[in-house]
Amino acid sequence: MSRYWSPLVHSLVPYTPGEQPKLSNLVKLNTNENPYPPSPRAVAAMQREIGGDGALLRLYPDPDAGALKQAVAGHFAGFGLTPAHVFAGNGSDEVLAHAFMALLKRDAPILLPDVTYSFYPVYCKLYGIDSVTIPVDERFAIRVDDYARENGGIVIANPNAPTGHLLPLGDIERLAGANPRSPVIIDEAYVDFGGETAIGLTRRFPNLLVVRTLSKSHALAGLRIGYAVGDPALIEALERVKNCFNSYPLDRVAIAGATAAMDDREYLEKTRRAVMRSRASLVGRLERLGFDVLPSAANFIFARHPRRDAAELAARLRERGVIVRHFRRPRIDQHLRITIGADAQCDRLVEALEEILHDRG
Amino acid sequence: MSRYWSPLVHSLVPYTPGEQPKLSNLVKLNTNENPYPPSPRAVAAMQREIGGDGALLRLYPDPDAGALKQAVAGHFAGFGLTPAHVFAGNGSDEVLAHAFMALLKRDAPILLPDVTYSFYPVYCKLYGIDSVTIPVDERFAIRVDDYARENGGIVIANPNAPTGHLLPLGDIERLAGANPRSPVIIDEAYVDFGGETAIGLTRRFPNLLVVRTLSKSHALAGLRIGYAVGDPALIEALERVKNCFNSYPLDRVAIAGATAAMDDREYLEKTRRAVMRSRASLVGRLERLGFDVLPSAANFIFARHPRRDAAELAARLRERGVIVRHFRRPRIDQHLRITIGADAQCDRLVEALEEILHDRG
Repeated sequence: MSRYWSPLVHSLVPYTPGEQPKLSNLVKLNTNENPYPPSPRAVAAMQREIGGDGALLRLYPDPDAGALKQAVAGHFAGFGLTPAHVFAGNGSDEVLAHAFMALLKRDAPILLPDVTYSFYPVYCKLYGIDSVTIPVDERFAIRVDDYARENGGIVIANPNAPTGHLLPLGDIERLAGANPRSPVIIDEAYVDFGGETAIGLTRRFPNLLVVRTLSKSHALAGLRIGYAVGDPALIEALERVKNCFNSYPLDRVAIAGATAAMDDREYLEKTRRAVMRSRASLVGRLERLGFDVLPSAANFIFARHPRRDAAELAARLRERGVIVRHFRRPRIDQHLRITIGADAQCDRLVEALEEILHDRG
Repeated sequence: MSRYWSPLVHSLVPYTPGEQPKLSNLVKLNTNENPYPPSPRAVAAMQREIGGDGALLRLYPDPDAGALKQAVAGHFAGFGLTPAHVFAGNGSDEVLAHAFMALLKRDAPILLPDVTYSFYPVYCKLYGIDSVTIPVDERFAIRVDDYARENGGIVIANPNAPTGHLLPLGDIERLAGANPRSPVIIDEAYVDFGGETAIGLTRRFPNLLVVRTLSKSHALAGLRIGYAVGDPALIEALERVKNCFNSYPLDRVAIAGATAAMDDREYLEKTRRAVMRSRASLVGRLERLGFDVLPSAANFIFARHPRRDAAELAARLRERGVIVRHFRRPRIDQHLRITIGADAQCDRLVEALEEILHDRG
């Protein structure tokens, strides 16, 4: 507390990201990072941008990240996108922050699931946006019909976090169509691991904004790149806010790496399929250990053990060098969110769980 | 305009950055970039972080950029800084944006010079901050005594942009001391080119925040790194806003490069002295061409020709492949802001000006 703070600051409660431990040799399954490295073409593009002496880095980047927007449009060939349909930002968290301010700061409250990415209510507080939470059902499914009420906007993660629950594209279409006066934001951070993108629908629904990230399926969490796709009028609102905040949010190395990563569709296809195979295998092994595992379309699973306290399980896994995410929040405090790691990491997780469960078995 | 925009968006007028032309062979003296490449140690650190296969980039960066904060504290050895005195952000524009929201959103209006970095009024509009502009004098000097009035905060660039005018440290001390109830923000983007930093004063004045960038003197405009130094309570306000906006604003490559750049004091010393020598030489040559050049402590000069229209001069320079910055704004529309380039670039500027002035002489 300080006399120099703006009054708003006193009441802010920041989002808490998953731990980024500095210890090595940990099996880090807590922040949904990809177990594979990024595309070799992305790595080569970053090295080229730095070059032998870094001379390009003395110059500002393209404030519009035009090459990246073009690559995003090209990646979704068939949907008829142009760079005017694309917004680029410093991770999808920044893209979401700008979208909340640019589209959701309205008179009527916005609608959010009660169990979802916990950054959404933080943005609401930061920007003074009123919100109403809509309960997910007892199996953590989002029921689109529950959103049929007056609103200033709707935000849904699909697949949802931290549950992995996927809405079919028909539900997104119904939601966008039923709310022609409200912006509908679909956060597709995890969709490459088992869902179908709603980007095609943005051409028919001028109220639909799809937000995505290169942190998960493109294995570039360390590079901070997110983007949004929608009608050019929605994109213009985001550009206006961005250009009142920071002209150059993406650095040269990030633009170069992200552009090449979006162009390398073959590598994306290969690695996302490998993660999905590992997920199927891990789900089977956890079920054999007695876990109840929710169906997941993401690169994580959300699971509970009917006879073990989730916080205690997380603590005992940590003692064995395995970090998973546990949320002390209503409805989900008996679940663990576990990232799909490489097969060797999944093995260490399962071995640790076998020890823990046997110990008290 | 769109029915989906938040009402605020309709009235936003974004900051206009200097042009980033895609043509090569231009002499680009319009956005105050450093003519020298960044420190070789910074280049090596970035290449190491990417490595052979980019494997580290699959992992999120340190959300606190602890290594960079430590390097900033170490760079200013003697002032007794710790990482708790340092905030790091995605360019000093982002740092300033967070500082405006975290510290300046108050009841009383903030004070700004009428001629200064034109992003400041843009932040005010974005966050609904009331401001009063205080005229600089007829030679574009800031007079600290003019700021002796009720205020919610004060923001001053030192050296000022686009004038290059420097306030002595004693004036900053008086300003901070005379406003014990208000945050005082000093933007030192250009101070390494001829001024003395106010960072030492932050230990005595808990209301003083110094904002800096690696874009200019460290030649890393392409990497997007800024930071702020102040009392830990001020820093905490910025951290709170940042953590409600984007947990990971700095990517891994940027943290690695910026940390190494801050550590390489010898390279900074060498290149900033070279820029200052080029400035002295360029000022002399322009004065011999009849220009009135304001004294500058920055890596640019602010100059007018008593018999030539500034907009026309800028246009004719552009025809000759030399880009400088001209602002169509009250009081300064007869001036040009010219970045100090490498000596060969300064030569091409002077030759082009000689042609233009001779042409109509």
